[in-house]
Formats: sequence, C-alpha cells, structure tokens
Amino acid sequence: MSNPFYNNHGPFKISSIFQILNLEFNKSYKDKNINDIKDLITSNENDITFFHSKKYKELANITKATFCITTENLKEILPDTCKPIIVKNVLLATSTVTAKFYPNSISDNFDNTANLIDNTFFKDKVRFGKNVLVGENVSIGSNCMIGHNTIIEQNVSIGDNCTIGSNSIIRNTLIGNNVKILDNCVIGKHGFGFFPDKKTNIRYPHIGIVIIEDYCEIGCGSTIDRGSMSNTIIGKNTYLDNQIHVAHNVKIGENCIIAGQVGIAGSTILGKNVKIGGQAGISGHLKIGDNVDVAGGSGVIRDIPDNSKVMGYPAKNIRDFLRENK
Amino acid sequence: MSNPFYNNHGPFKISSIFQILNLEFNKSYKDKNINDIKDLITSNENDITFFHSKKYKELANITKATFCITTENLKEILPDTCKPIIVKNVLLATSTVTAKFYPNSISDNFDNTANLIDNTFFKDKVRFGKNVLVGENVSIGSNCMIGHNTIIEQNVSIGDNCTIGSNSIIRNTLIGNNVKILDNCVIGKHGFGFFPDKKTNIRYPHIGIVIIEDYCEIGCGSTIDRGSMSNTIIGKNTYLDNQIHVAHNVKIGENCIIAGQVGIAGSTILGKNVKIGGQAGISGHLKIGDNVDVAGGSGVIRDIPDNSKVMGYPAKNIRDFLRENK
Amino acid sequence: MSNPFYNNHGPFKISSIFQILNLEFNKSYKDKNINDIKDLITSNENDITFFHSKKYKELANITKATFCITTENLKEILPDTCKPIIVKNVLLATSTVTAKFYPNSISDNFDNTANLIDNTFFKDKVRFGKNVLVGENVSIGSNCMIGHNTIIEQNVSIGDNCTIGSNSIIRNTLIGNNVKILDNCVIGKHGFGFFPDKKTNIRYPHIGIVIIEDYCEIGCGSTIDRGSMSNTIIGKNTYLDNQIHVAHNVKIGENCIIAGQVGIAGSTILGKNVKIGGQAGISGHLKIGDNVDVAGGSGVIRDIPDNSKVMGYPAKNIRDFLRENK
Repeated sequence: MSNPFYNNHGPFKISSIFQILNLEFNKSYKDKNINDIKDLITSNENDITFFHSKKYKELANITKATFCITTENLKEILPDTCKPIIVKNVLLATSTVTAKFYPNSISDNFDNTANLIDNTFFKDKVRFGKNVLVGENVSIGSNCMIGHNTIIEQNVSIGDNCTIGSNSIIRNTLIGNNVKILDNCVIGKHGFGFFPDKKTNIRYPHIGIVIIEDYCEIGCGSTIDRGSMSNTIIGKNTYLDNQIHVAHNVKIGENCIIAGQVGIAGSTILGKNVKIGGQAGISGHLKIGDNVDVAGGSGVIRDIPDNSKVMGYPAKNIRDFLRENK
Repeated sequence: MSNPFYNNHGPFKISSIFQILNLEFNKSYKDKNINDIKDLITSNENDITFFHSKKYKELANITKATFCITTENLKEILPDTCKPIIVKNVLLATSTVTAKFYPNSISDNFDNTANLIDNTFFKDKVRFGKNVLVGENVSIGSNCMIGHNTIIEQNVSIGDNCTIGSNSIIRNTLIGNNVKILDNCVIGKHGFGFFPDKKTNIRYPHIGIVIIEDYCEIGCGSTIDRGSMSNTIIGKNTYLDNQIHVAHNVKIGENCIIAGQVGIAGSTILGKNVKIGGQAGISGHLKIGDNVDVAGGSGVIRDIPDNSKVMGYPAKNIRDFLRENK
Repeated sequence: MSNPFYNNHGPFKISSIFQILNLEFNKSYKDKNINDIKDLITSNENDITFFHSKKYKELANITKATFCITTENLKEILPDTCKPIIVKNVLLATSTVTAKFYPNSISDNFDNTANLIDNTFFKDKVRFGKNVLVGENVSIGSNCMIGHNTIIEQNVSIGDNCTIGSNSIIRNTLIGNNVKILDNCVIGKHGFGFFPDKKTNIRYPHIGIVIIEDYCEIGCGSTIDRGSMSNTIIGKNTYLDNQIHVAHNVKIGENCIIAGQVGIAGSTILGKNVKIGGQAGISGHLKIGDNVDVAGGSGVIRDIPDNSKVMGYPAKNIRDFLRENK
C-alpha cells in the first residue's frame, strides 16, 4: 500500500524496534534500517510486516519483508529471507511499531486546519454552499460541488465532476471522478479497532485510507471507515444506499448495488456485481465472490462463492432457505 | 398525483415521445399533445402512463391515460382508449420520457438557492437557531421552530406549530400541522432508483415528493426518500423513532408506531395502526394491512393481512414462530 | 436518581396531585407536602412513586416512597408506609404528575440559549472548531476539544481530556473524563416514549439524563436517548461503534464492546464485559449478564445469564444455534 497521506517518520534501525517492543535484540541479525511497516503482501525488502493467523499462511510464505512480527508457532511459515520477531501478541506489537512510524495516525480529533472555503483558492474553482470548510492537503478537480456545512478535512483528493452533499465530513480519502456523496456521511475516520483493556482500551493506528473509485454513489447518513494497515475500497460504479456502514479494510468490487442499512464488518472483500438487499449484514474477514446476491435482512457469516444467491441467517442457498421457511 | 414542485416542461406531441425512445411513430395514431406522465391510476386523458408488471393488471385495465409505455405481452390488458407504445425495457423508457417532462428532477445537488434565514422574510415569523438556511419556494406556517444548522431546501411547505430540530435537511416535502422532525434527518432526497449499467448506472427521475401529515414525529438520524412516480407518505399521527429509513414511494398509514432502526423498502404500503419493533425490515412492493404488529428484528417478505401479529424471518404468525423457536 | 438538570417545581400538597388526576382526595390521608416523583428504588419519604407491573414487585415491596400511583390489583404489594393512589392507567397518571413537577421536561425543541462558543468564557479554555454552539448550564473540563458545527445544548457537563467530534448534538448529559464522542451523534434527546392516542399521541416527560462514564468512545452517527424516570448509562471504558442506537433508560456496564448498527431497546440492562456483534438487537426491559457475547445479527428477546455466548433470533446458546444451522 502506498500511503499518500501519513507522514512516515522512519526509517528506523531494527534494533530500535526491538527496543520499543521490550525485546532483547537478536544479535545474529544485522542492525539494518527499516523503511516502513506494511502488510504481508505489500511489504518489500527492508520493510517490517506482521503475521498473526494461519489464515494468511499463503501470503506469509511469499512475503518480501525483511522482518516479520509473529509468534513461535507461526514463524516456520515465513521464507528464509524474512526474519521473525517473536512476540506474545502480534497485533499489539504491530500497533506499537506502526505508531512509531506514523505517530499522527492514532488520533481522529476534529481537523483544526480546516478553514472556510471562501478563504481558500478553491473559492473560484468549486461551486459550494454556506459554511463549507477545507483542511490542509486537499485537492479538488474541475466541475465539483460541495454542499452546505460539509467539512473536507485533511488529506482528501477529489477528482472531476464530483458532487458532495451537505453536512458530510470526509478525511483521508481518495475520490475518483464522477462520484456522488450525499448528505450527512462520515468518510475516512478510523475503524472500530483497538486492544481491549480493563483500564482503558488501546486504539491502534489506522494508516490506511478510503478509496472511492469513479462513478460511485454513497447514500445519506453512511459511514465508511478508513483501513488500519490496508485501505478501504469502494469499486467503480458501485452504489450505496442510505445509512450503510462499511468498516475498516473492506474492499467492495465494481458495479455492486448495496441497499439501505447494510453493514459490512472489517476486512471483508466483496467481488464485482454483488447485490445486497436492505439491512443485510456481512461478518468480518470474509470473501464474497463475484455476481453474488445477498437477500435483504440476511446475515452472512461464511465465505460465499461466485454466482451464488444466498438468504437467511446464517445465509445459505436462497432456494434451500425458502423451501425450509415457507 | 398533482405535482406542486417540479416544473412540467410539456405538453409534447406524442410523435416527439416516440422519437426520444428511438421508435418509429405509429402513423395510425393521431399526433396529439400529451400533457403529463403519471402512474396508471392518476393519469388522465391526454397523459402518458407505463405498465411493466402483471401485478398491476387491474389498474392497467381501467387507466384513463391516452398512451401507455408497455410490452408486447402486456398490451392486451390495456383498455381500448389507451394506445400501447411497445418497448423492451418499460422502466428505462419511462425514465427517458419523465426526464423530458421534468428535466430538473434527476439531480439532487445541494440547493444553491438556500440563503441564511436572517436575510429572508421568515426572520420575523419563525423562531430559529444559528446558521439556518432556506431555499426557494418554501412556505412556513405560524408558530414554527427550526433548529441550528438546519437546511430547508427548495420546494418545502411547512404547516403551523411544527418544530424542526438541528442539522436536518429537507427538500421537496409537504409537512402538515403539529409535526415534529428531530435532529440529523434527511428528508426528500431521491430514492435508490436507477438502471444498473456496467459503465455507469443511469439514475431515473424522482418527480414524487414526501408528504408528512399532521401530528407526526420523525426521530433523529432518519432518512425519508421522496417518490419516483408517486409520493412517499407518512400518515397522520404516525411516530418514527431514531435511525429509520423509509424508501421511495412508501406509504405509511395513520397512527403507526415504528421503532428504532427499522427499514421499509421502496413502494411498500402500510395500513393504519401498524406497530413495527426495532430493526425490523419490510421488503419492497408489499402490502401490510391495518392493525398489524411486526415484532422487532423481523424480516417481512410477503404481504401481511389486517390484524396479524408476525415475527421472524421470513415473518410469520407470531405464535407459530415462538412455538417453533423456543 | 438525583436530577441535576431539571428544575423541580414542587413540593406540592398530595391533595393537589389527586386533583390533577381527577381523583377524589382520600380524606384518611394527611395532606402532606410531596417533594418529588421518583422510581420505586430511588424515592424517599415524602416522595411519590409508581408501580405498574408485577415484574417490579420486589422493588415495590421495599419502596420508601410515601405515596404510590398503582392499580387495585397491585396495591397489596406495597409496604404499609406507602399509601396507594389507585388509577386505571398508571403510566399515564405518572406522566401527568411528572409533568407537574417538571414542566420543562416534555419538549425537546432546539436550544435557543445556544450561543457561539467564541462569545463565551470557554473561548480560552477549550480547543474548538468553526460554528460551535454552547447552551446554558454547561461545564467543560480542562484539555477538551469540540469539533466544527457541534452543539453542546443546555445541561451538559463534560470532564477533562474529552474530545467531541463535528456535527454532533448533546444535551442533558454528564460526560466523565477521557471520553471520545465522534461525529454526527445525537445524545440526550428524549426517548421514544408516549401514550398512543388516535387523535394525537401524548408524549411523557423524560426527566432522566445520559451518563457517559470515563474512557468511553461513542461512534459516528450514534443516538443515545436520555432516560424517562431513570438515567441512560454507558459504563466506564465501554466502546460503541458507528450508527448505534441506545434507547431511554438503558444501562450498559463497564468494558463493553458494541459493534456497528446495534440497537438496544428501552430499559434494558447490560452487565460488564459484554460484547455485541454488528447489527444485533436487544429487546427492551431485559437483563443481560456479565461477560455475555452476542453474535452479530442476533435478536435477543429474553434475559441472558452471565458468561453466556448467544446467537440467532431468538438468540440462544451459540453452539446449539450453529449445530442447528449448518
């Protein structure tokens, strides 16, 4: 994942990473500079990655990272080119290291760089309503409209011919061309990701962004959280109805149609041409294939292969469901 | 349906309607002026209507329209006074013709006619908060209140003794007397209606409005979409709780009580005294009778007769459901 | 319940309370001054309380109130120190009496005392965005932030180190220290409580408040209603994801984790360390024990004992559910 928005404070010596994890440095390792922390698939030589579940063993086996935060049990799966850093809680350690590289990616306070658009150079370029605010590191293409009271916070790029409604809030988001975002949306906040702790839960950094591709439409009152280590993606020409919640790291393919009040939990991947009826819910970390139809009100808790039609909770083949539930 | 808000650009010669549909004009037809496009039941002589599903055959059989967009299979159901215009995709053709009559009903961009209420003649008539905006073609009765940051966009009529909360957005809506609309609502936007297309989906016009009758209350964060060809109606003294979604063309009867996070899909009709528990969902194009109780969390996918109590997904008789699910 | 926010217009002679209920005063009763109306458990000598369901008989049996609005059937359960006031509809009579003590607790109109924060003494104490409003009777601790367009309405107390997002609306709420409330929330409005009436429903007073304890986080687009006779409480270090609805009088324990789009109906009590998956719904007036896990999409309609894992609708033991629903 290229990260256009968060300022990488690295590189850091690998010994300093051992140090913040309260681990003794393995002196058989060379004290190299580490450039970045990335997931198994996007990391390169001289990056550090993490591997916490057998579910990802195929990706772990071919990672290009030079170091990997993992457990005693999983370390054998890594290729020889990738040195394990053994910890008890992989995700907590990953969070600590990520916060070292990207210290500004934890807090999601309001953007105090936001300024009235009338006082910016967008004044003559964009059609806008009353009380529109724009933060730092924002770009907006030609022929765009932004409705009343909308806040384009830091780190947003908007393409050409886009219309943003009123009372919406957007940050850390790449928006393509010809996209419509309707009223009262919140896009690009961190996801619901943290380490539970009896005293006070520990938020982990969210260094991903939201990517909304060309020709999408996002309905009123929807929330789309940005990714933690990867991005949240809404594919080309996909339409979301009102009051939809898309959690962090979700990837939705092209030409999907998602009806009102649907919720998609973290890290789930939807293929192309997926149709989801109103109020359906998709659990986290699932893979929904291309051309899948999910009936309204269903609860999907398992992977769904291409070209399936499912219904019910747990969602199953729609014919079976309807036969059993006359 | 009388249409108080959209400017009808007709009448148009029927030959010009054949032309935009890329059809050869049937020369046995007189080249009459067509006044309007309406649904089967509200259209009159010299109107054009549309008929796309056998479900509506009883209405089609008595339509007063002079022309009807329909298919080869359905045309025989029309009365002799109504001439068929045969197309492959009735709804797409209807959309094209509607856009000709009502070119301003497709886009739902922010209302750039909206002005600070302090600069309008409502200043001395209405009690209002900070940063309230009012668009063109708005009327407000006596003894009304409008909360902070609320936007009354174009084409809204509000009766007497109404209170609108803060951060709400309303357009294309007729509101009766003694209505309360709470905070963060979006009322009167177009519905989730379009023709899917792999390159870019085609939005169809929404020339309906939202009608909220006397004594209603609409909870925080709710969305009510306006109708496409007919209206979305909330009947007298009906109360909606928070975070409810009412889709386009839905009609809710009098004295209904609808709890939080309920969703009602497009074109469904609810009778009087209907009670719906929290998070229940009602599929589109259904008829729910008078005095029906729908238990919270249920999913209704079939018509429900008067005086029924239903529960489950698919919703069935509540006693049967509870017996089978101890 | 101590009530920090609503102005108690009492005390009132008990004879005057008989009068507004259209009851003849029972002359065997001394015409005492009544200080307040409270629930069975929090009322003291010289208070009036109410008792409408056998479900509460254990509390009724030990109430310290001097008078109790109840029915002929239930009156025997009260202790000798508590005199019954017999009515047909306990809740309606309670509502009438509550409105006498707290006439300002019925309406929830926008707060017209709210003023731009720039014009208040908070200007130098709080970091705030554009267009932030603050009403009367608000206190804010040290090191707090309030985002753009947010409205802190009347009767809000915010502790230290709190961050409130943008476009949120808060009233009648006590917020502890180190709390985060994200964007587009509405907190502290009255609940969905009223007496249905064919002409016009009758709202009952909501004299409760919302209490959000230390270290909580409330996600974007959530709504938390204040209590009617008791308070709505979010326990310490509990995290709520986006688009959650918490109804009036709900009490959530410490260290709970509640995922997106969950709804919790009125007066339900959750223990500590409860985890609720996305889109699950909990019916009203239930008791959910400590350490309970509710799977996403479930519908809970019965009390759940401590340490249970439940799933389905109606929610049952998760192993049973998964075995029966392969």
